[in-house]
Amino acid sequence: MAETWATLGVDLHLEPARSGGLRRGLTDALRDAVRTGRLAPGTRLPSSRTLAADLGIARNTVADAYADLVAEGWLTARQGSGTRVAARAVIPPAGAALHRGEPRRPAYNLIPGTPDVAAFPRAEWLKAARRALTAAPSDALDYGDPRGRPELRTALAGYLSRSRGVRADPDAIVVCAGFSHGLRILGTVLRARGVRTVAVESYGLDVHWQLLTDAGLTTCPLPYDELGTDTREPAPAGAVLLTPAHQFPTGVALHPDRRAAVVDWARRTGGLVLEDDYDGEFRYDRQPVGALQGLDPDHVVYLGTASKSLAPGLRLAWMVVPPALTAQVAAAKGGVDTCGVLDQLTLAEFLASGAYDRHVRSSRLRYRRRRDALVAELARRAPSVHATGIAAGLHVVLRLSPGTEQAALRAAAWHGLAVHGLHRYRHPESTAERRDALVVGYGTPPDHAWSGALDALCAALPE
Amino acid sequence: MAETWATLGVDLHLEPARSGGLRRGLTDALRDAVRTGRLAPGTRLPSSRTLAADLGIARNTVADAYADLVAEGWLTARQGSGTRVAARAVIPPAGAALHRGEPRRPAYNLIPGTPDVAAFPRAEWLKAARRALTAAPSDALDYGDPRGRPELRTALAGYLSRSRGVRADPDAIVVCAGFSHGLRILGTVLRARGVRTVAVESYGLDVHWQLLTDAGLTTCPLPYDELGTDTREPAPAGAVLLTPAHQFPTGVALHPDRRAAVVDWARRTGGLVLEDDYDGEFRYDRQPVGALQGLDPDHVVYLGTASKSLAPGLRLAWMVVPPALTAQVAAAKGGVDTCGVLDQLTLAEFLASGAYDRHVRSSRLRYRRRRDALVAELARRAPSVHATGIAAGLHVVLRLSPGTEQAALRAAAWHGLAVHGLHRYRHPESTAERRDALVVGYGTPPDHAWSGALDALCAALPE
Repeated sequence: MAETWATLGVDLHLEPARSGGLRRGLTDALRDAVRTGRLAPGTRLPSSRTLAADLGIARNTVADAYADLVAEGWLTARQGSGTRVAARAVIPPAGAALHRGEPRRPAYNLIPGTPDVAAFPRAEWLKAARRALTAAPSDALDYGDPRGRPELRTALAGYLSRSRGVRADPDAIVVCAGFSHGLRILGTVLRARGVRTVAVESYGLDVHWQLLTDAGLTTCPLPYDELGTDTREPAPAGAVLLTPAHQFPTGVALHPDRRAAVVDWARRTGGLVLEDDYDGEFRYDRQPVGALQGLDPDHVVYLGTASKSLAPGLRLAWMVVPPALTAQVAAAKGGVDTCGVLDQLTLAEFLASGAYDRHVRSSRLRYRRRRDALVAELARRAPSVHATGIAAGLHVVLRLSPGTEQAALRAAAWHGLAVHGLHRYRHPESTAERRDALVVGYGTPPDHAWSGALDALCAALPE
Repeated sequence: MAETWATLGVDLHLEPARSGGLRRGLTDALRDAVRTGRLAPGTRLPSSRTLAADLGIARNTVADAYADLVAEGWLTARQGSGTRVAARAVIPPAGAALHRGEPRRPAYNLIPGTPDVAAFPRAEWLKAARRALTAAPSDALDYGDPRGRPELRTALAGYLSRSRGVRADPDAIVVCAGFSHGLRILGTVLRARGVRTVAVESYGLDVHWQLLTDAGLTTCPLPYDELGTDTREPAPAGAVLLTPAHQFPTGVALHPDRRAAVVDWARRTGGLVLEDDYDGEFRYDRQPVGALQGLDPDHVVYLGTASKSLAPGLRLAWMVVPPALTAQVAAAKGGVDTCGVLDQLTLAEFLASGAYDRHVRSSRLRYRRRRDALVAELARRAPSVHATGIAAGLHVVLRLSPGTEQAALRAAAWHGLAVHGLHRYRHPESTAERRDALVVGYGTPPDHAWSGALDALCAALPE
């Protein structure tokens, strides 16, 4: 898919990247154009609206790519003068080899959001697939219940109750193709029920806010203070999207008072809490806090996923929906988006046979070791940088001195490291204090690359 | 999911049916309520709007269920007096056993749209899954290209070119979770490009029309005459949805003049043809006519699916998109709906190894034998009924004398046969002559049930 970038007279080889889609693809293509000198320093770029129209893609995609490259230091954005190629795009750190004309891919990926897919339990999964497909009735292969296969819903109900304290009836579980798919369905249902505004956390994922916006909803950020997200008064919102077990990305657990407050609010107003339990399996210092849903299954939708515990490529996630909403959620999902039954049957067997628990246990141990090594290495080599958040999940937030986030991102890029700054996760309307930090995903590198990645990270950080 | 049907004071056990979802579930529940006498003859039913609100489901779902039951004779609908339970719901044919209070499920399913899922090649599929997952790079399990795995797109490009005359570049293929999913994506893209109206065939699937309507488009039916669908002037539509190889459900192939006409129209006006090639693999009397897309890949989107050739439960289909639209279609699909990679990799291996061709060949032989047996048996036992349409696909249209379709559907129901009338496939705004016919899907029954189904069908038809 080569696109001619007529607006600038530059040929842009635009291809959706392996991970991250068009946004990442466009970011890569633009970065390469700057790196190789095809876009000279000082060049003014077309507006995001113009370039989006030219490429036939969404304006947000272009705006996001520009923002990424501004954050990385390749572009500058100033009120009144638009977006330009940085005068001297990047100052290479002493000793870094710079081969002009040879675009450089990051050697290490510490962007949060994906587990170590190299550790996917292929042999165990194939065994489960064989058992599941051999045992399945023929009609499992037909068009099915929009909620998903009953075998999987039954297995999930048992697992979620046992491991996360979720009160789950198989009839109230709806299988979906990833968290985002579930959120899109819930957005449609909320809008149909007359909800206009969804309260979200001050820090989170813009793709989630965008999904809600696409469903016709407005997102408004909740305050964020020293106790974390302030859930005491989400009005005028009709629903709240939260990551109670492990706030993404700041890494704190929702304060007990705030857990109680949001459930009180939901009961008092008939509001709905959407609980994004994306990495609830991974807590390293104690037993995980149980799901919020356990406090009030009538007012909380629990959302879990196999994307962190197994692999994003499975495209399998699940919602536990209040009984009063189940029919409407199933209808909104419809027959259109039903997930493939073979993976559903396999995951059901994987759960029932105990293979899922075994895999989670061994993953927990490995990720915990990585986190411990990271914290220890930072203390030794970059003592001014503090790892914050609870010992959980697949990422850690490294607090930096005020005003140093962009410099740290540039340094990371020059050490071949893909990593994100905290600013990109801040809701545009948040009033929370701005903090400079790196959000480091330690789950992603395969085992053989982990120590190299950690070394590059420490080298990029201020001492 | 038991729902109290407060509006009528009747408990309705509403459960999405195995196949067909809520609509079928509601139809079954209502039919049972009438059959068992819980809804007395003459009872007036709530309006579809009221019942839909009561159950928290879409109004169309209720309206469709009512229409199904009117067609089956359980309900009557009259202007001014609403929908009522039929005074004498059903006249059982002489000799039919009627056990009041024992709701009866159809013994045989001849509703078109599904293949014989009992013939799914489980062992071959598992072998391909093992080879595919063993060979896959780890990053295949990560978040991926919204177009789908490159292995599958490459295998499909080869297969579609060879078997259907499609001009396909892997870069222009977008994998989706079934035809409906693809159509929803295309609807979004068309609407974003300013298209307001999509021309459709006079006969087709209401769920497809609904998907386009949901995307903000209007559907308008093309004329249908003795040459089939008249594609000469689809204006003011900006796009046309067609089943050229085997019109669904009337069963004719698009006339060569009409094939040429629609491509001319698209070139002249910049319009887009959406080619639904749902069962293009199954032609019994000759080589299949090549895909329309081969005539003009810049103006035709080709849509194929594994739902008829393998199993609907896989939720795998594919689009071959004009190069100018590929980026936009991929962006509209986004990361939300990406299909599971394991089935994608397995299907790629299944295609590359020749297992797909072998399965299609053996299926073709089996379905052809069924169709031949059906035609022969009809000639012997119901000579007044004519099988129409080309020798292809998984269904046949049985023409009936004018005004006898509803009686035939009632008789079929009393012989334990689930089957559809042609009327339900007619676009509400079609001006085409009304025809009475049954649409008989002979793909669905497993082998052991086929002769019983055929026998029941012949028994239900007029001699």
